Amino acid sequence: MSKKILMLVGDYAEDYETMVPFQFLLGVGYHVDAVCPDKKAGDSIKTAIHDFEGAQTYSEKPGHNFALNADFAKVNTADYVGLIIPGGRAPEYLRVNPRVLDIVREFNQVQKPIAAVCHGAQILAAAEIIEGKTVSAYPACAPEVRLAGGVYADIAIDDAVTDGHLVTAPAWPAHPQWLSQFLTALGAKVDLG
Amino acid sequence: MSKKILMLVGDYAEDYETMVPFQFLLGVGYHVDAVCPDKKAGDSIKTAIHDFEGAQTYSEKPGHNFALNADFAKVNTADYVGLIIPGGRAPEYLRVNPRVLDIVREFNQVQKPIAAVCHGAQILAAAEIIEGKTVSAYPACAPEVRLAGGVYADIAIDDAVTDGHLVTAPAWPAHPQWLSQFLTALGAKVDLG
Amino acid sequence: MSKKILMLVGDYAEDYETMVPFQFLLGVGYHVDAVCPDKKAGDSIKTAIHDFEGAQTYSEKPGHNFALNADFAKVNTADYVGLIIPGGRAPEYLRVNPRVLDIVREFNQVQKPIAAVCHGAQILAAAEIIEGKTVSAYPACAPEVRLAGGVYADIAIDDAVTDGHLVTAPAWPAHPQWLSQFLTALGAKVDLG
Amino acid sequence: MSKKILMLVGDYAEDYETMVPFQFLLGVGYHVDAVCPDKKAGDSIKTAIHDFEGAQTYSEKPGHNFALNADFAKVNTADYVGLIIPGGRAPEYLRVNPRVLDIVREFNQVQKPIAAVCHGAQILAAAEIIEGKTVSAYPACAPEVRLAGGVYADIAIDDAVTDGHLVTAPAWPAHPQWLSQFLTALGAKVDLG
Amino acid sequence: MSKKILMLVGDYAEDYETMVPFQFLLGVGYHVDAVCPDKKAGDSIKTAIHDFEGAQTYSEKPGHNFALNADFAKVNTADYVGLIIPGGRAPEYLRVNPRVLDIVREFNQVQKPIAAVCHGAQILAAAEIIEGKTVSAYPACAPEVRLAGGVYADIAIDDAVTDGHLVTAPAWPAHPQWLSQFLTALGAKVDLG
Amino acid sequence: MSKKILMLVGDYAEDYETMVPFQFLLGVGYHVDAVCPDKKAGDSIKTAIHDFEGAQTYSEKPGHNFALNADFAKVNTADYVGLIIPGGRAPEYLRVNPRVLDIVREFNQVQKPIAAVCHGAQILAAAEIIEGKTVSAYPACAPEVRLAGGVYADIAIDDAVTDGHLVTAPAWPAHPQWLSQFLTALGAKVDLG
Repeated sequence: MSKKILMLVGDYAEDYETMVPFQFLLGVGYHVDAVCPDKKAGDSIKTAIHDFEGAQTYSEKPGHNFALNADFAKVNTADYVGLIIPGGRAPEYLRVNPRVLDIVREFNQVQKPIAAVCHGAQILAAAEIIEGKTVSAYPACAPEVRLAGGVYADIAIDDAVTDGHLVTAPAWPAHPQWLSQFLTALGAKVDLG
Repeated sequence: MSKKILMLVGDYAEDYETMVPFQFLLGVGYHVDAVCPDKKAGDSIKTAIHDFEGAQTYSEKPGHNFALNADFAKVNTADYVGLIIPGGRAPEYLRVNPRVLDIVREFNQVQKPIAAVCHGAQILAAAEIIEGKTVSAYPACAPEVRLAGGVYADIAIDDAVTDGHLVTAPAWPAHPQWLSQFLTALGAKVDLG
Repeated sequence: MSKKILMLVGDYAEDYETMVPFQFLLGVGYHVDAVCPDKKAGDSIKTAIHDFEGAQTYSEKPGHNFALNADFAKVNTADYVGLIIPGGRAPEYLRVNPRVLDIVREFNQVQKPIAAVCHGAQILAAAEIIEGKTVSAYPACAPEVRLAGGVYADIAIDDAVTDGHLVTAPAWPAHPQWLSQFLTALGAKVDLG
Repeated sequence: MSKKILMLVGDYAEDYETMVPFQFLLGVGYHVDAVCPDKKAGDSIKTAIHDFEGAQTYSEKPGHNFALNADFAKVNTADYVGLIIPGGRAPEYLRVNPRVLDIVREFNQVQKPIAAVCHGAQILAAAEIIEGKTVSAYPACAPEVRLAGGVYADIAIDDAVTDGHLVTAPAWPAHPQWLSQFLTALGAKVDLG
Repeated sequence: MSKKILMLVGDYAEDYETMVPFQFLLGVGYHVDAVCPDKKAGDSIKTAIHDFEGAQTYSEKPGHNFALNADFAKVNTADYVGLIIPGGRAPEYLRVNPRVLDIVREFNQVQKPIAAVCHGAQILAAAEIIEGKTVSAYPACAPEVRLAGGVYADIAIDDAVTDGHLVTAPAWPAHPQWLSQFLTALGAKVDLG
Repeated sequence: MSKKILMLVGDYAEDYETMVPFQFLLGVGYHVDAVCPDKKAGDSIKTAIHDFEGAQTYSEKPGHNFALNADFAKVNTADYVGLIIPGGRAPEYLRVNPRVLDIVREFNQVQKPIAAVCHGAQILAAAEIIEGKTVSAYPACAPEVRLAGGVYADIAIDDAVTDGHLVTAPAWPAHPQWLSQFLTALGAKVDLG
């Protein structure tokens, strides 16, 4: 039976940060359930393209619609070996949903691997599970990491950091490092032959 | 000599939240200096349209370019009777600029009126001036207000709240209430005749 | 009881020229009824962003949806102390609506203050109330002002002009001057303390 | 030697209203010089897509860039057998250019065929050549036709009208009728065999 | 009774390549039936703006909605004197529709003029009617022309080529040449007087 | 020393189809060189969002800019263990570049794994390496596969097919299957523990 990962997404999640980890984990052999509060399997979320095009912060354009494949209301965290949280503008509003925070805390309680990229750290901060932990996040979210008692990891934009079961990274250029470290945290190994 | 207000903006500030307070304050008689880090009078910022179009959180589209009329590097807070901070996506990155935080703290130190709308509260939180204060913000930013020790005011989307010299509101529908309370905090009065 | 202003808008009204005067007048204490032909309170209009981005005339992008708060069909001009007409692309089509023209003429008849910005002057011209009057408008609309017998005021883009009860201006950079003169025409006064 | 037609365009001319007549006239055998004030052969104008998508007036989206093939500054009206004026948002600002109005008057003076579609009639009105003439235009421009002394032709959206050397039509759905009548005015004939 | 031309279009047909030939043929006197599989008269297709804006291939933006005026399901090729196929992204998917290919083959069988521009050649290739024929197409489609046994005509972007009853061209700048040659193939003549 | 994969991309490659395989292969441990004709490491390509939003074929919106990390001019196919070709609108124009076709043929010659998704098959067809091979492609490209002598695999949109060293799939929903089969073709194995 395949191992299952839970993915927490919402409207205006960053497009790459949603599809790359979703298809990466599927491609190496996990089952991934992508869920969003108040939505069911077959519903979709809108995504956003966050890119750097000359302004002092990222630009935003509309991305793909991303199809969910499981029901948020039916999530049982015991079914999953790990949790993954994409960034973009979804974490901002997802963090005020009590069930979202409970889900994160349940994974944290039993120390199952939790991966968050970019603004995904906003949910970790709101769930109050990063006190004393070294956590990466989109650089402009460093104040939130610190207000929640975390140690902000000031790493390169394409790097990631693992502190126990928490695997975090600053933004989508870090996907390879971040997903590689998440595989390690999950106990998986790749042999290129 | 006209009384001066300082306005802190940046790229992807919300379009309404930038122009409405700017022109409101000019229209009732203040001089307003709109500044952005690393920019000068005559430079412009890109703005963003944040609206509700059916998704679980706000949509974003490109807005007007907004022309700055003063140099950030030359700001002397002693020249101003109040500070105003628009929302949108600018406060997120402005809050990691040390001079931005110092400017906010200087206004706070001498209890000059400070008005912030929507994500503007992110700067107040990062400046650590809201401990024990009742503060409104975009609802999805409530966790940030609380992590910074503030009391999040759960008010209507078109309402505002004044706690001492801090005047805050959840989003642009609250502009009339917010700007009216800011005028009061500044000691101004309007007589409709 | 608060004094009421009537605001005439329509689809593709300019975004700033709709929201800035609406919230300015609310913020200083007026009640404002925003109406559009064939629409009711709670309906919305689409707005347009008109900006200058290097072409020989303004660019257009989609703006916010603007929510109306009163029914056009129920307008009784006797209820209002003044009329305000935003610009953009709405005045062009609103001017062929006979009731729109009648409303303008009723305010004009009793010399209640009428404020129009940018293309708003197209409605004043079509209502044939500007003969011999000094009127500002978006510069490209000067020929329309003149064809209607008005004296086109060739003023700066951020300036406004009052001729009797008519307060007009060329475009949104003029909002502060225009709204300040409109307050004066309405008999209001602001005391900054 | 081929017969030459002059075409007056500018930024944000309607995309269809620019390219369809340009290529129609070339395709049947005319030479067409497309010019814009302050631009030369090889420069381009931005065009606009005007369409009906549910609002009370047309929507606007960015269209193709349209390449000019002659210099405005070198126009000698004696070289041309007719003049054609597309619509969109270009005529609004072109009508305040004195040389544009002179060019129109020179064609009118010698009664060479002049074709205008949609907002193109704004230039005819500003040039003051439609007094007593039956002229079609975009319906929302009817007040301008009348203010200039013209008789507004209230015809179907896909119809056109010829009054002497003036051939006018309400919008791009009328291109076939409008261009056919323009051919007739120019003395051309098509034999389908 | 007017002579009829059939036009095969679909979603994301190029905007110019749809409307210019449609209105050109109407304007010179043909009746044109524009049809799309699974659609009827009064339905519309979305079009695409294909332009060159600095990238190595064309950019795409949304164009006008184009209204169909006949039912695909009712097409009887015997009713038409010629067939015209616009380009853009529609031909790619239309070529897998068996009835589309049959329609093309029926015109080809009786050697009635067939005009295709840009990606329209993809349908000619899929219908397998270009073996040994000299055919123009969008340059990047040359491999498809050759795979189907056609001789790719490497002509200028604004030129067209006629080989028997096939009239083809590389892209919309070629419309005048292409439509002129199509008129010739149809036996029509224009006399400019 | 890490094993290297070559990735062939170009302007308006599909956004997901570019970044997902790029980061998937990096994440499992390969080095990936992404190249585009006439571009170097550090240059970027524009990408396109291809999605299904109700029309008869995919919609297109602008995607992220994708940064290349190697020089096309320096490609030596002997350095790589495999080749990967994303889809979108890039393959259409890349297939007319002789060096692109040579690169594909060099991988094919020595039977190194070649993966192509969606329109990527257009390059395989133009390189004439699919005669008798079972190949998947975007369904609308089936005629091109067949014209080139390939056997079009009519599989589900999220499935992939391997025929010898060729691994192909219809579109981005198939990434997990496609990339998993590509890993197999490369001799790699994943152990989830």
